[in-house]
Amino acid sequence: MVSAAELLDEARAGDRRALARVLSHIERGDDEARRLGRLAFPLAGRATTVGITGAPGAGKSTLTSATVSEVRGRGDRVAVLAIDPSSPFSGGALLGDRTRMNDHALDEGVFIRSMATRGHLGGLALAAPEAIRALDAAGYPWVLVETVGVGQVEVEVAGAADTTVVVVNPGWGDSVQANKAGLMEIADVFVVNKADRPGASQTVHDLEGMLDLTRGGPWRPPVVSAVGTTGEGTAELWDAVLAHRAHLERSGELATRRSARLRDELAAVVVQQLRTEAEARLGAGEREAIEAEVLARRLDPWSAADRLLGRR
Amino acid sequence: MVSAAELLDEARAGDRRALARVLSHIERGDDEARRLGRLAFPLAGRATTVGITGAPGAGKSTLTSATVSEVRGRGDRVAVLAIDPSSPFSGGALLGDRTRMNDHALDEGVFIRSMATRGHLGGLALAAPEAIRALDAAGYPWVLVETVGVGQVEVEVAGAADTTVVVVNPGWGDSVQANKAGLMEIADVFVVNKADRPGASQTVHDLEGMLDLTRGGPWRPPVVSAVGTTGEGTAELWDAVLAHRAHLERSGELATRRSARLRDELAAVVVQQLRTEAEARLGAGEREAIEAEVLARRLDPWSAADRLLGRR
Repeated sequence: MVSAAELLDEARAGDRRALARVLSHIERGDDEARRLGRLAFPLAGRATTVGITGAPGAGKSTLTSATVSEVRGRGDRVAVLAIDPSSPFSGGALLGDRTRMNDHALDEGVFIRSMATRGHLGGLALAAPEAIRALDAAGYPWVLVETVGVGQVEVEVAGAADTTVVVVNPGWGDSVQANKAGLMEIADVFVVNKADRPGASQTVHDLEGMLDLTRGGPWRPPVVSAVGTTGEGTAELWDAVLAHRAHLERSGELATRRSARLRDELAAVVVQQLRTEAEARLGAGEREAIEAEVLARRLDPWSAADRLLGRR
Repeated sequence: MVSAAELLDEARAGDRRALARVLSHIERGDDEARRLGRLAFPLAGRATTVGITGAPGAGKSTLTSATVSEVRGRGDRVAVLAIDPSSPFSGGALLGDRTRMNDHALDEGVFIRSMATRGHLGGLALAAPEAIRALDAAGYPWVLVETVGVGQVEVEVAGAADTTVVVVNPGWGDSVQANKAGLMEIADVFVVNKADRPGASQTVHDLEGMLDLTRGGPWRPPVVSAVGTTGEGTAELWDAVLAHRAHLERSGELATRRSARLRDELAAVVVQQLRTEAEARLGAGEREAIEAEVLARRLDPWSAADRLLGRR
């Protein structure tokens, strides 16, 4: 049984199985994950994270795999963190997608890991930054964070990257109003994937029109056309990512974004610790008695919370 | 300036402006909302809540409006709580949808309220049950909770109803894997809306096939075809809602579900109170100093949380 420090050292020395074990601890959110997190924290901060999000079926996984090839062609090492939805129903579709990543199975410069999040105490919001820091500490200069779902949490996680790539398909302009709004806000780069299908140029045009309406400021998200299955457009995509990275550095926004993210993470950790503390403070019997009062409608939830917290 | 008790009394006596003011307090989550919540809590518990959710563009608002007509035709009073996404970008589309509800503007037996949730301390998860209780206490036997988005939070809110109606459209079987999984899990009743379009019967067939695969247990969600714009199928939809309501009562699941929801709400309130407490406990100066240590990567978030909580 190796210590957390030894395990992390092995991962940093290039031992991929050690890195996989580090990530398994983080996925579970166990005590070892805490120790690993504390050790990895000061070692991280050099990698650039690129979030890749968009509606299910948009071809994110295929596009990510093609992008990995592009990055490798330029000589950089790259890690992929694929955030899985927690639903048991989507297991099959996901596994099918993941096999595309097998193209990179023999490449020592690529590390791919998918992470389910149902088990993690505090969920995705706490596990993802820790996993990114582990990959960062292990020396990957690029961490691509691909989210499979399009729920609020997934969008938040993908949006908590240095650069966020939003993947859409031809015809996207026609529908999905609400998600569109959320995605318009977080995109640093747009990709119209499956651009060999009809309507691609119209979708690029629609996107540019929406950007005219909604986006001011020093950075206007470029709109790139790509075909994930052939790799077409991934060079332009990666150029757009690099251009955004340079913009972040030049404008000082990189530091601002990273600080804001760390602050958010800290707040989430505080809430998580408080929750654990509150649960530990009360005996199960006492908690159940107060809950029973609420269920009988003799005590409202706010008064019950006060009692649970020992306030009156 | 009336007191919370007076305001709630007026709302319960049928004063719609008073009820609107109660809901405005709840939307803001201010101190008056707490008082109103405490007063409304023991008065509520009689209304049945029906969540209506589904992808943006599925026609939920139109279908909800048609369903309100159906319920009114049967002689019951009904309230609609429309949960708005917080994004500023979706304001336009939403307003357009809401105007369909104007059909009921002169009907004293209908109360419609849309609720934005950006401002509420603790968000949708805390505001929605309080708003539902206020409408319940005001004497509406039915509260329809329509969510505009399809993000995780919206699905959670809609799923936290006694009966959850999932609205889909012809062709739904073809795509959107991840959301589909989430919606399959929460549906008590399916509606294939816009059933006058091609592919409706195929979609009903696909849904039944998915239900064969995924749903066991004593209740199998019926699949109803409807056309929101004409009201076609809303009688069948409401019959399905009533059948599910009867099933809930008969099986004892109504009490189980409501207890589980109250427990979840209580847990959310406790976290909210803990967060407020943690913020109050620290001076802003101290918090900033600890944050600065984290931003400088001299202190990891978990150790920082310990310090913020005064643990070491």
